Formats: sequence, structure tokens, C-alpha cells
Amino acid sequence: MSDGESAVAFAPGHVTGFFSVDTGATEAAVASGSRGAGVALSAGVTVTVTRAENTGVVLNGTPTEIASVRGVLDALGVTARVTAETPLPLGAGFGVSGATALAAALAANEVFGCGCSENELVQVAHVADAEAGTGLGDVVAQARGGLPVRVEPGAPPHGSLDGVPASGRIEYVSFGGLSTSDVIGGETDALSAAGADALAALRADPTVAEFVAASRRFARAAGLVDAAVADAIAAVQAAGGEAAMAMLGRTVFALGTGLSDAGYDAASCAIHHGGASLR
Amino acid sequence: MSDGESAVAFAPGHVTGFFSVDTGATEAAVASGSRGAGVALSAGVTVTVTRAENTGVVLNGTPTEIASVRGVLDALGVTARVTAETPLPLGAGFGVSGATALAAALAANEVFGCGCSENELVQVAHVADAEAGTGLGDVVAQARGGLPVRVEPGAPPHGSLDGVPASGRIEYVSFGGLSTSDVIGGETDALSAAGADALAALRADPTVAEFVAASRRFARAAGLVDAAVADAIAAVQAAGGEAAMAMLGRTVFALGTGLSDAGYDAASCAIHHGGASLR
Repeated sequence: MSDGESAVAFAPGHVTGFFSVDTGATEAAVASGSRGAGVALSAGVTVTVTRAENTGVVLNGTPTEIASVRGVLDALGVTARVTAETPLPLGAGFGVSGATALAAALAANEVFGCGCSENELVQVAHVADAEAGTGLGDVVAQARGGLPVRVEPGAPPHGSLDGVPASGRIEYVSFGGLSTSDVIGGETDALSAAGADALAALRADPTVAEFVAASRRFARAAGLVDAAVADAIAAVQAAGGEAAMAMLGRTVFALGTGLSDAGYDAASCAIHHGGASLR
Repeated sequence: MSDGESAVAFAPGHVTGFFSVDTGATEAAVASGSRGAGVALSAGVTVTVTRAENTGVVLNGTPTEIASVRGVLDALGVTARVTAETPLPLGAGFGVSGATALAAALAANEVFGCGCSENELVQVAHVADAEAGTGLGDVVAQARGGLPVRVEPGAPPHGSLDGVPASGRIEYVSFGGLSTSDVIGGETDALSAAGADALAALRADPTVAEFVAASRRFARAAGLVDAAVADAIAAVQAAGGEAAMAMLGRTVFALGTGLSDAGYDAASCAIHHGGASLR
């Protein structure tokens, strides 16, 4: 909805279960990123974009520099006040930077009449998130919704997506953050090999159960599981549930009531069937 | 949601504003269909699939033969009782056959553990709808949601989709049906030329206003507008609104409160941001 001065858009959160870094056939950020799979969450980011002389971002009431959002507004050639609200933890593997960038792109396009299609806005946000070093695949997943499988990296029309049929409640608990740029800025060959194995397994058996199992195998192979995360995953499984780690954060997500059944004080939401959209 | 015996899925309705028939690069139905654009509707079809020895379909309480649904179950190699509920008029351009086929595919995959990905289920439903002669593009649009633009025909990975950023209320009124197979089974060159023009115009200006304007131009060029449809579109425009005709039906859809502002007793729903999904 837009009154000409401001517009509101929403993008779902997204937890990646496994991934492999892929710079694609070219060096262009729009055609590169990551393969992998994750879950879009009904808990996301609601963004209001308002015309302003200078660009500024306020996240949950606090002025915050979000490089991906600044990248989007620069690419669209506009300046605006961006107000973002989210219940999600920051820097903990929920794709908040990507969601904020994508929702800002949709809302800014509406306010300023940029005349972009949705694919073009996804491209702008994907490139901004990648160039900011905050995400390599969240944006394309957040534009799709559901349980997106990133078969080929990059924004449309470069990338290729599929999905695992899925529905229902998701719970999560976060013990803190991991730096995306520290992990994906380092040596990624072993990590990407584990991600490629997980993707092949999921494509052969595109079910929610295999998604969670492949994600657990990936996190262990990548050496990213610390004690708190390992304990939570084990506790959920001991209680008869299914859980894995969110990439990249010290965050555990579970199907259904997995974490609360295991005694954790978990936040809950649902698999979000739609992608980002104007409100 | 599935209890092992039955599962429920939902697919949005879809009104096509304009289209061109395209058999694609090959004869294969999976890679052919139509280009065009339309709107996914929050009014859709909710389908329950239950294990049964013989396949039967009940639509809004009445046993009904829906060839696209039978095609889906045959392709998946299962037999089931399919119960579909929809508030949408039948045979009037809302893509009920496509929505029922797609939701049935999602629910049957869940009940019978077919192990298909979402793209595979879209392929199955798209081919079944095309082979039944009831739709050439609804299914791929209903799998995406929003205001889908069918840039290249066919199911994924063959087809290519974009979207017009859009949100808000949609109203519709139907004066009766048009036979999809009568229109697309005849001479389609002039119709497809008008559709190609509309698609080019929308891709150059991917806005809701241009979508409705291009759809009106298409309907007139295709010679499909009768007096009742023409009157309704004119009345909405006279009242300051925007409306066009749904392909293929004697149906008018309008943005916001366009039809009720013009004095019509219209049904209302919203642009549905997500695609078809398990419930």
C-alpha cells in the first residue's frame, strides 16, 4: 500500500539449512551466490519506506547502518527513510539483512515509481546483500517462500529454484551470531563439498525429513556446531523431534513443537508460503 | 497437514488478463502452454485427498468429473477420493481446473509419499490441465502467486516467470462461461499477436495500471468482449476505477472496490501473495 509518500512491504525470514558457495559462470554478483536449501518463516521483516532527503535506516526503533539496504536505495537512485520492524534475532542466521533489503526494494519501487518488475527488484536486493557480505542466497529464497531449494545460484533469470512441499509450525532458539563474512570469506572448499552432497541428497528425496537430516549432516561436516547448538539438536531428537542448525548463526530450528517439547523456551512461527510482497 | 490417510492443500484462483498460445520449442506439453499475465486470488480451491480404492472427485458437494485431477492422480499412479471446495464460479475464467489439479497434486504427494519436489508437482498438474484442454498457464501462475507474468511458456524448469509488484483487494463479477477449448482450439494467430503486444507493453512498464490497461486492449483486439462485459468495464471506469476481462470467461475483475463503486454486486478477495501449498 502506498500513499505516494510511503509504502510498506514484508519479507519472510529465512534459515538456510545447508549451502555451497558458488560464484557462478561469471563474476557478476547477479548470477552468483549459493546453492542450498532453507525455510522461509512467517516471522520476517516489515519495512516502511518514506521519501526523505537523506537515507537513514531505523531497525526496531534504533538507527542502524544496514549496508544491503543502502545498496538497494543507491541502485534504485533514491534517498529515503527506511523503518524496519522484526521479531527475529539479528546476525543469527535468519536472513534479516536480505529480508530488509528485499522489502525495502519493493516498497521503494512503489513510492518512487521506479517501474521495476519483481525479478528486477530481487536482482537489486540479491546483489546488494552479496556485495555487503551479509548473504548469498537469502534474497532469492525470501522472494519465493516455502521451503526453497536453490538449485542454481543467482537472482532470476540466472538462478534456478525448486521447493520441498512443506507446511506447519517452526520453532527456533538462538545462542548468538556467527559472522557470515568470516565463514564465507575464508576457505570454503570443504564446506561447499558438504553442501553439494546435501543438495544431491535432498533433490533425490525432496521431503522435509531429508531436508532436516541433510542440514544436520552439513553442519557437522562443516565444523560449525558448538556445544550449545549440539545439545539443543540432541535434546530435540531425544524428545522425538527433528532439528538442525541455521546457517549462519548459533541458532537451532525445529519442526513443529520440537524445541518446546525438549524444554527450550523457543520462539515459534510457521513456514511462510509466499515470498516478499507489498503490504 | 497429513495423517497418512488424507492431506489438505490450497491453490489460489487465477484470472488471466491476456495471453498468447505457445506450443514451445518442442511438442512436449511440459514445455509449452502460454505466455501472458494474470492475478492470483485469495479465493481459491481447498482440496482434500484421501486414500480410496477408486478415484472420484466431489466439487462443492457434487460428484464431478474433472479431467485435470484424474490426469494428476493417474500420473502419480494413485487412486483417491478428492474433495474440493471453492467459492469461485466454474468455467468462468478463474482457473478452477488448474487450481484443483495443483492442490490435488500437492495433497496426493503428501498422502502417498510420492517424493516429488514442488517443481515436479507443478509439471504434473500443468500437463494434466493442458491435456484436459482446460488451461495453458493457470497452473504455473497458481504455483507462484501474486501478479504472475508468464515470460516463457511451460512448467519449471522450462518456463520463465516474472511478477508485477502488487497488493490489495480484487473484485469480480461473472456473467457466465466461455469454453477454453473452443477459443484456444480454434484459430489463435490474431489472439496470440494481441497477447504478444500486451506482454511487451507490460514488460516495458510492469505496473498494475499497465496490466489492467493491456488486458483491456487484449480483450477488445481478441473480439471476446460481449455487451455485459463491456458495460461492466465501462461502468467501473466511469466511476474512476480500473477493470478488465478474465480469460476465458464472461467475467470482469476490478482493482480495489471498482465494481462495487460502480453499483455491481461483486464478490471480493485479495491478491494472493503465495502460491499453492499444503495446509
